[in-house]
Formats: sequence, C-alpha cells, structure tokens
Amino acid sequence: MTTHAAMANAIRFLTMDAIEKAKSGHPGMPMGMADVATVLFTRFLKYDAKAPKWADRDRFILSAGHGSMLLYALGYLTGFEDLSDIEQIKNFRQMGYRTAGHPEFGHVAIAETTTGPLGQGVANAVGFALAEKMAAARHGKDVVDHYTYVMAGDGCLMEGISQEAISLAGVWNLSKLILLWDDNHICIDGDTAISTSDDQLARFQASNWDVCRVDGHDPEAIATAIAAAQKSGQPSLIACRTTIGKGAPTKAGSEKVHGAPLGGDEIAAARAAAGWSAGPFEIPADVLDAWRAAGTKGASARAEWEKRFAAYAGKDEFLRTNAGTLPQGWKQAVSAFKQKVSAEQPKWATRKAGQEVLEALTPVIPEMIGGSADLTHSNLTITKATKPVSASDCSGRYIHYGVREHGMASIMNGLSLHGGFIPYGGTFLIFANYLWPALRMSAMMDQRVLYVLTHDSIGLGEDGPTHQPIETVAALRATPNVLVFRPADPVETMEAYEAALDNAKGPSVFALSRQNLPTLRTTHTDENLTAKGAYVLAEAEGKKRQVTLIATGSEVSLAMEARKLLADKGIAAAVVSMPCWELFERQPKEYRNSVLGEGTVRVAVEALGTFGWERWVGENGAVIGMNGFGASAPAEKLYEHFGITAQAVADAAQARL
Amino acid sequence: MTTHAAMANAIRFLTMDAIEKAKSGHPGMPMGMADVATVLFTRFLKYDAKAPKWADRDRFILSAGHGSMLLYALGYLTGFEDLSDIEQIKNFRQMGYRTAGHPEFGHVAIAETTTGPLGQGVANAVGFALAEKMAAARHGKDVVDHYTYVMAGDGCLMEGISQEAISLAGVWNLSKLILLWDDNHICIDGDTAISTSDDQLARFQASNWDVCRVDGHDPEAIATAIAAAQKSGQPSLIACRTTIGKGAPTKAGSEKVHGAPLGGDEIAAARAAAGWSAGPFEIPADVLDAWRAAGTKGASARAEWEKRFAAYAGKDEFLRTNAGTLPQGWKQAVSAFKQKVSAEQPKWATRKAGQEVLEALTPVIPEMIGGSADLTHSNLTITKATKPVSASDCSGRYIHYGVREHGMASIMNGLSLHGGFIPYGGTFLIFANYLWPALRMSAMMDQRVLYVLTHDSIGLGEDGPTHQPIETVAALRATPNVLVFRPADPVETMEAYEAALDNAKGPSVFALSRQNLPTLRTTHTDENLTAKGAYVLAEAEGKKRQVTLIATGSEVSLAMEARKLLADKGIAAAVVSMPCWELFERQPKEYRNSVLGEGTVRVAVEALGTFGWERWVGENGAVIGMNGFGASAPAEKLYEHFGITAQAVADAAQARL
Repeated sequence: MTTHAAMANAIRFLTMDAIEKAKSGHPGMPMGMADVATVLFTRFLKYDAKAPKWADRDRFILSAGHGSMLLYALGYLTGFEDLSDIEQIKNFRQMGYRTAGHPEFGHVAIAETTTGPLGQGVANAVGFALAEKMAAARHGKDVVDHYTYVMAGDGCLMEGISQEAISLAGVWNLSKLILLWDDNHICIDGDTAISTSDDQLARFQASNWDVCRVDGHDPEAIATAIAAAQKSGQPSLIACRTTIGKGAPTKAGSEKVHGAPLGGDEIAAARAAAGWSAGPFEIPADVLDAWRAAGTKGASARAEWEKRFAAYAGKDEFLRTNAGTLPQGWKQAVSAFKQKVSAEQPKWATRKAGQEVLEALTPVIPEMIGGSADLTHSNLTITKATKPVSASDCSGRYIHYGVREHGMASIMNGLSLHGGFIPYGGTFLIFANYLWPALRMSAMMDQRVLYVLTHDSIGLGEDGPTHQPIETVAALRATPNVLVFRPADPVETMEAYEAALDNAKGPSVFALSRQNLPTLRTTHTDENLTAKGAYVLAEAEGKKRQVTLIATGSEVSLAMEARKLLADKGIAAAVVSMPCWELFERQPKEYRNSVLGEGTVRVAVEALGTFGWERWVGENGAVIGMNGFGASAPAEKLYEHFGITAQAVADAAQARL
Repeated sequence: MTTHAAMANAIRFLTMDAIEKAKSGHPGMPMGMADVATVLFTRFLKYDAKAPKWADRDRFILSAGHGSMLLYALGYLTGFEDLSDIEQIKNFRQMGYRTAGHPEFGHVAIAETTTGPLGQGVANAVGFALAEKMAAARHGKDVVDHYTYVMAGDGCLMEGISQEAISLAGVWNLSKLILLWDDNHICIDGDTAISTSDDQLARFQASNWDVCRVDGHDPEAIATAIAAAQKSGQPSLIACRTTIGKGAPTKAGSEKVHGAPLGGDEIAAARAAAGWSAGPFEIPADVLDAWRAAGTKGASARAEWEKRFAAYAGKDEFLRTNAGTLPQGWKQAVSAFKQKVSAEQPKWATRKAGQEVLEALTPVIPEMIGGSADLTHSNLTITKATKPVSASDCSGRYIHYGVREHGMASIMNGLSLHGGFIPYGGTFLIFANYLWPALRMSAMMDQRVLYVLTHDSIGLGEDGPTHQPIETVAALRATPNVLVFRPADPVETMEAYEAALDNAKGPSVFALSRQNLPTLRTTHTDENLTAKGAYVLAEAEGKKRQVTLIATGSEVSLAMEARKLLADKGIAAAVVSMPCWELFERQPKEYRNSVLGEGTVRVAVEALGTFGWERWVGENGAVIGMNGFGASAPAEKLYEHFGITAQAVADAAQARL
C-alpha cells in the first residue's frame, strides 16, 4: 500500500523539480505543508477531480499563493483535467502554460481564487464560507453543505486584512471555515520572531474561533485536528507546526528555502534521503494511482448530491444564480425607474439616486447582496428588500462589514467567486485606497463586484481633505478591467447600474455625490446612454459647435451653466456627459469623434484631480479640476475657492477660441 | 475649586456649540471621551501649551479624527496660541480657519498628525513611540523621555492596520505607548455587536500588551489606570467604557449622536441637565482659569529639561536632526558615487543601484532609518550602517516590519512626524496598493518619507500579474505632493535619492527594477539632471530632431536601442529620460518644450499602464506600454509578448512621420 509519506513526497519532488527547471519559484511552503495537504486531499476534502466545478464541493484556498506548486502538484496528482498533463508542471511559470507563478483563477480549476498578494485568500475564504452559509439558508443543507479550507502562512496572518476577515468570521460564526496555518517560524527576512510576537491562537480565540496546534508532519494528528475542527461549531484555526522546505537536507527550516530553487545538489540529496528513486517529474505508478484514486473518491458523494439536487424544487433558481445569469424581466424595473425620474426630475444627490435604484433593483434581482463598511446611512446602500445577515440568520441580504473596507472588498470577491451572489458594498470614495488591493483582484478575476463609493469629490464639504478624493478616480480609471461610473443624475445612475450588471466579467465602481444635483436627463429613452461611456447631453444651439464641454457626475450641471454663459456671449457650446471612460473607449472612432467634436475647443471639468484628462481634451484643451488636496468648508465655498465654477469653465473655453 | 465635571463639560459644550453652528461635525466622541481627556490633560500629559513643539513633550494623538472638536476644545481651553481665540471654535469647519473637519497637522499645533482615515493614528502612534525609544537610545533619558498617548474608537480597532501596528508595538515592547480606547459599543451603523464580537483585551494581550478596562466617566478610575499603564513595562490598552455623546439627554448612547449636530433643543436640555448656565461658546471664568493653569503646568518640567539639554554634549546633532536639516558634506557622497558609477558603468538592476546608493548615504546621514515589509533581500534596503532595531536594543537603524506594508508606511509617518528621523521602507511596487492610505497621509502632511518600491514592472517576470504593477505608477503620479522617481541607471538612482532628500516637504517613491540594466549616464556631472524631471539623454544626430522618444526607468535603454533602429533608417531621434514627472512639470515652459521637442513625433515607452501619458506625447503621439494585466513568464518573453520592444517603439515613431 502506498504510504502517506510517499504521497506527500510526490508533492515535494514535483515542487522541487518544477522550480528547479523554471529557475524561480517558492519551494518552502509546498514542501512544508505537503503532509497537511495530503491529509486534507486524501481524507477530508469533498471534491471530484473529474468535476472540478461541482457546486457543492468543499472549497480549498491557498492564501499563501507563492506556494502555487502545492496546488499544481495536487491538481496533477489527483487528476484535474487541466493539470493532468505533466507538461504543465514542467513548464511552470512559462508563457502559454496554466501554471503561473501564483495561482490564477480561470487558468486552472483547482484555483478557486487568485492569490499571491498576502491575506487576500484568508478574506476570500471568509467570503466563500459566508456564501456557503447564506446559500444553505436559501437552498437547504441537502443542496448546500460544504466546508471552506484555507491554507495561510505567517505573511497572511501579519497582513491587517487577515484581522478584518477573522473578526467577521467570528461575528458570523462561520463554523465550516477551517484555516490551516503553516506555522513554520520563518518569514522572508528570517525567524518570524524578528517581526512577530503574537500568540496567534489567543488572537483567533479573541475573535471567537476554535483553535488548536498540531505537528504539521504527523498525519494522524492533522487528521484528528481537522475532524475536530469540522465539529467545533466555530470557525477553526489549526496551527500546523511545520518545517519550511521539509525534505531539503541542508536548507529545510531556513528562509533560504522560501523563494528560490534548491539547486541540483540539494535536490539529489533530498532524493537520496527520501529514498526517492524516480527521476525529475516522474511519479512512481503506485503513488500516482493512489493519488488519482483519491482525486475521484468524491464521485459517489457527488452522485448522491446530483440525485438530491434533481429533486430540489428551487434548482432552476440555484442554477441561474450560480451561472451568474440575471433574472428575466429585471430590465422592466430599469425602464420604469428611468421613466419615472425623467418625468419627476427629483433633485437628488446621486448617492440618494443610487439608493432609489437599489430599491428598484434589489426586489427583482434577489442575488444582489448589499453592505457597507459601517456607512450604511451615508452610502445609502440598504433597501427594504435587504435585511441584515447575522450569525443566527443568514437568509438576509445586507452585510454590516464594520469599518473594514479592505475586508469587505475581499469578502465580496469570495461571495462572487463562490457563485450565487452579486455583491455590492459601500464606503466613501476616498477609502477606495483602503480596499484597492482587493478591487484589483476583482478586476484580475473578472468578478462582478459592485463598489458603491459615495462622497465623491470636494462636494462632500466640511469633512475636509482627508475625506476628499483627488487621485482616486484617476487611479481607478488606470486599473485594467474596472468600469468607473460617475453618473450625473438619477437616470445616469440607473443606467450605470444596468451597465454594471450587464458586465458579467469585471467589477464596477459607482462614484456618487453627497450633494444634491438636478435631474438632467428629462426625456425618457430605453437606450442606455451611459453604456456608451459618453454622449452629447446638450448640443450647441443656433450655430455650429465651437466648444465641447466635457464633464462627469456633479459637474455636468455645472457644464450646463457654463454652456449658458457661453451662449450669452454668442459662443456655441455642447455639453458631453462622460460617465464612464472605459465604455467610451470601446465605441467606434466615428462615434467618439462626433461626441468629442473634432476641431472644437474642448474643456473638461471634474471636481477631482485632473490627471489623465489630456486624453480627451487634446493639446489645445483645458481641464478644470483639482491640482492639490482639498480643504474643510461647505461645498459651495470649496468649489468657489478651488475655481471649479461655471464661469471658470466658460472663461477657459473662451480663452482658447 | 473647579470640579473635574465642570472642566469636562467645558469640552462638551464647546463641542455641541461648534458643531451646531457649523451645521456638521461629530459630537459623540468628544462628549464621550471628555472625562478621559480631562484627566489626561490635567493630570498626566507632559506639555506646555505655550511651547507646543517642545521636543520632549508627551505626544497625544487623536486617532478617531472625526472627534476633532475634542482636540480643538482642549487647545482652546489649555491656551494653545493658535486656538486660544474663540473665533477658531466658532468657525469650526469653515474656510480660512484652522479648525478643519478633521485635525490637520500644520494647521494647529495640538494636532501631532492628521487623522480621520481610521486606524492611521494608532499606527502613527506606534511610530511616535518607536521614535521616542530610538531617540532615547541615542540621546539618553535626560533628553528624551516621553509618553505617547493615542485615543482610538471602535472604527480604528476594526481597521486591519490597527492589528499590524499593535503587533509591532508588542514586538518592540513600546512600554511608553498608551492606547485609550473609546469603548462605547456604538458604531455608525448601530450597536457594535452587529459587526464585532472581538474580545479586544484578549486580542491586545495576544500581542503582548498590558490591558485593563475602566469606567470612562470615573476620573479616579481613569487616573489609576493611566498611572498603572505608565508603569506596566508593556504597551498598554485602557478600555474606557463610555457613553457616546455623554451629556446629551435623549441622544447619548446612540449612533444618532455620532456624526450630526444635536439640535438646539437637545443642547438646551443638556445645559439644563448639567446646570450649565454659560451661553454658547462661553466658558465660566473659573473653569477657563483652571484649564489654562493646567495648560502651563508642564512649564517647570520643560524648564528643567531645557537646563539638562543645555548641558547635553550631543545637542547640536539633536537639534539638527529634529529640524530635518541634512548633515554637512553629504553631497560629497553623492558626487563620489556618481563619478564612480559613471566611470565603472556597472550593469545593475536599479534595486541594486538603490542598495549601493544607500550604502553610500546611510553612513553620512545617520538619521536615515531603513526597513522593509519582509522583503529585505529583494528590496535591497539594508546596509552595513543599518543594524536592526529590536525590543532590547533600539540604537539600530533597520526595521523588520514583517509583511505589513500599510503599518510600515503609517509607522514611517509617525517616525517622521516625531522628528529626528528620515525613514525609508521597502516593498514591491505593486504593494503600494496595500499602503496607499498612509502614503497619501505622508503627502498631505508634507513628510519626507521615502518609499523604496522594487520589482517595478512586468520586468519582474515569473511572479506574474498579481505582482506586476500596471496602474500603480499612474496612481502615484496622480497623488498630490508625491515625487515619483523611476530612475534608469545607478546615476539617476543616486540623483533621485538626492532630490528626494532635498525635498523636505513631501514623500518620494523610488520605482526600481528587479532586472539588470546598463549604466546610461557615462559622463559625470555634479548637476542633478534627475531633479529636472526629464532631460535629453541622447540628442538626435546628424540632422534636426524628427522624433522624441520618452522613457523612464528600465525602458530608457530600450528607447536608446529604438533610436539606433531609427538612425539606421535615416530618422533622427532623441531620447528623453523622464525619471520624475512632477519635477519636470515645475521646469520653465521653454525648458520643457526644448526637451519634448515641439513639432517632433513623440513616442513614450514605459512597461506599465499607459494611463496619463497623453500629457507628454500629445495627440499625434504614441505610447508603448501595458493595456491590461501582465502574465507569468521570464521577463524578456513578457516584453516580447506585450510588444514593448525597441522595434515597436521605432515602428510607432516611423508610422507617425
């Protein structure tokens, strides 16, 4: 019979060989955690390598993403189709192969999430586990009943985001979340003692986790700990005391084994010490057979689940929401809303418009899950249809994340990746900087996560420069695969949500005003003009357009005033509303040119930093905006003080004619 | 005798009146913590309101910055000169007054740091306390011996950055750091129980803090706790159980009192309940007298300190470093280095060049304090002159921050704000997104904090898209008051450091390559060309310039190759190295035009996102760079794959001629 040791060593040698061939990579973690992973994947994890996306599989998340070879080795050994060819392992970290330096969602099925930036996987896992609990509350335990395992290193636990996630796991009592900590006492700079004196068990206990410590190289002890954690009734931390790079004769237990190839001599010595006679990338047949058998052990559980699922009355809704398909008829709510507001023309802040949009959409799109980082009544993110989630009742749809923007965003990624939910979460726009790493992951992983970011300029007024975004929107626009919407009125706000929901393959940001604004789109059309990115809101009148005023959000009405000032001087100006740069860039060149008014003087106005606007105004154009940090005063005083006025816009245009 | 209650109520009524008049603000926290603040400022805090910048004062940091009226009330009452005019209080949150919505460093002396973004103050305080311990190790207890007090709310403790900071305070055993937690059980969304179940005392204990809980409205209990904390020998948490908005008859104890004016009726009822007959903004003479007396109680301690300091042999160095003046002669090290590398022309990665620069500068600028977020040997930030700091020995100059980028940056702000140190810290460039909120604070507060951000493009290779910055540099360039340097070779790297050190009023970022690069500046000049932001590295030859190739960092050598390809076709191209946009923008227009080559075809190349480059290439120009996320492969393959090649640059130029 193939021993545990041989199976674990298969992970170790694949790791050593792949990293050696790639001439880069991180052997320390896969070798150190090979025993834990072997126990988990052969005795506990509910999965079927032949059906890797089975909805009720247990989730396994490698938060310490630099240890990617652990995941690839497991995928190869257990027989995941996309990794079962050894060429993938042999071409670790090479162009055109799935085995990227860090595990990437979408490249290999075994990667439930992209990891590498530390701590993200821990917070993602909290999102996965919350999704499971919420899904179980909706569909019942017959359909949804799985564990979430996350493997994390010291780095993950040092990152602040881990604390945000750990706390929330405690609040929601995510008892099916099990964190396997690679407790190896080594960080990149040396012994962890140089930068950590935390008692991690006590820390997790303080957030209502069940905790224990085991020898991470003793398979029976690991198994006992996992079995106990499954039954604990709390989220569980298992501190697995390991030797980093276990199996490397001279380098194990040292930071030298963390992030560099071991070298041929060390690997040869490792083979000798382990009695591993197989050559590079070769796995003895009995060992591979044992692994492949483990990989499909879950097939019977899956078959039973399929039977139960076939009998489940709500299966269509389950399949629809898991596929990310929006429900029939939701566009009627969009249309009805647009008709109503274009007729009634309320003077709402766009954050208020956003709330009304959510009031219209959340009843018809039940998979939308709201939340806020403790700014619910400022972001205006809660609706009648979204009652709060709690430890004892996860049937709700609103999440109080506390003051944890980063955790919120990363947990939203987990909710989205798990399937079944479309998360949206609010904070102030400026605090996009607290959640940036997680938003970037939403974008890299093509996740439809919606960021409701209110108080979107100096227009927030008295809270002052610490709260006034300047560089924020430019930074978001510079990030690939993010739709950044800055709508001007209730119609554009609804259109922004419509476009964001239609965009199944990436996150969207809504930058929404604190201050009241007029409704500008007063003639209804079902066409989504915001989805074009930019459009002519008001064409020049009387004669050929001389000036094109380009604005977003709260400054569109200001541009309309400037247009009037120019008209009074006999200058024909059009106003272009540009709620979404990214979507405008996707339009045909002719459309873009017609909107931007080739040959006209172009002036952009946005009460944010001006960075990047040269793209639209050209060399002869002007940008009216912020060139430094803001100040604390009422909003109208700030606009005046910083020269963001209709007069300034008109003057800039006139000066260039 | 004036009672404690009356003195605390003076804070409460100034708070209520100021917020009522401003029609915005946050009364809950100042009213809830008025008793704690009164005990601290009348019995413990070592300060002299008449000499607010006395170097050995205790530091008081209001991390819960929305409670700014607490600070302003204290400043007014104790007689800080810049707040002693009641007009400042009456014009809270108004244009042209110092009393901004959140406390701003530089506006009022009592604000040791700008706070508002939650958690920053806690991490700043750890930096202040570390600075104190490090300064004491250098100058002795006769010269440096003060406490750091930080007042934080639930929001601060929910933010992940607080965990990073708390952990490090434990590692360094900052026994003179005392955190006063406003434990009021209320967050903005309601009872803290909706989003937190943490046992905070246990959490802090897990990081080696001394902890206790007191009734935050019992002055004797508070005093006992502070006295004990001072002697504890560990960093101390005092959980002050308070009622938010204490003194508001109907609204106290509820989230309604957190962030909105109380209203005239509630304030009138508060006056009646407290027997407070003084009108708005009036403080009874005996109460004001008692406060003003407290404000100068520290004068005698200060006088004694001045006497000791006068006798201190190292006082000149102490004064110099605290003033932020660089030592005599450091520029000789700059010149010697530039001469050497321009002659020897090593092929170093700029991260390696950065290390050599630090090897040259750290011996001659002893106030430079290095560190890394656990990437020391990747960032190459440690030098022979900088031995590590530890709990038992703070005489060192190198800080192992652990995997805590955000905490590192915020602690560096504290080190810088305290005075006496110029901190620099390393991580990968991509992880600027983990530390962005703190970097923004460096910029807002004009702090000379140096960010050493290596692995600065797809040139890092195999680690892949999670580690490859795309939007990062654009985001940093969009942030006001940050100098973003991307040097091309060892000469430019030294010049970047020189310019950054000369820039005493703001942070700098060094984006440094992982991969090796040629030395391009092969003719020595003492002039700092990098400080001009951009300059012509190689003028067109043979005939009038037709093409201007603009590049930064690792792509400057690529532009040089493209120039040769163009020359082979008879096209005359110049190469402009543009290591710092911000400094280039400060140059006279004529210089800028001469560098950019008005009328020439301009092509920019940078192996990062292209966002923002339209500023320099104009409408007819081209930008060669990244338009999406990167990939995992060896660097040279990636450049090829993404079309960032000399040929692509040359082709783009030629196509536009």
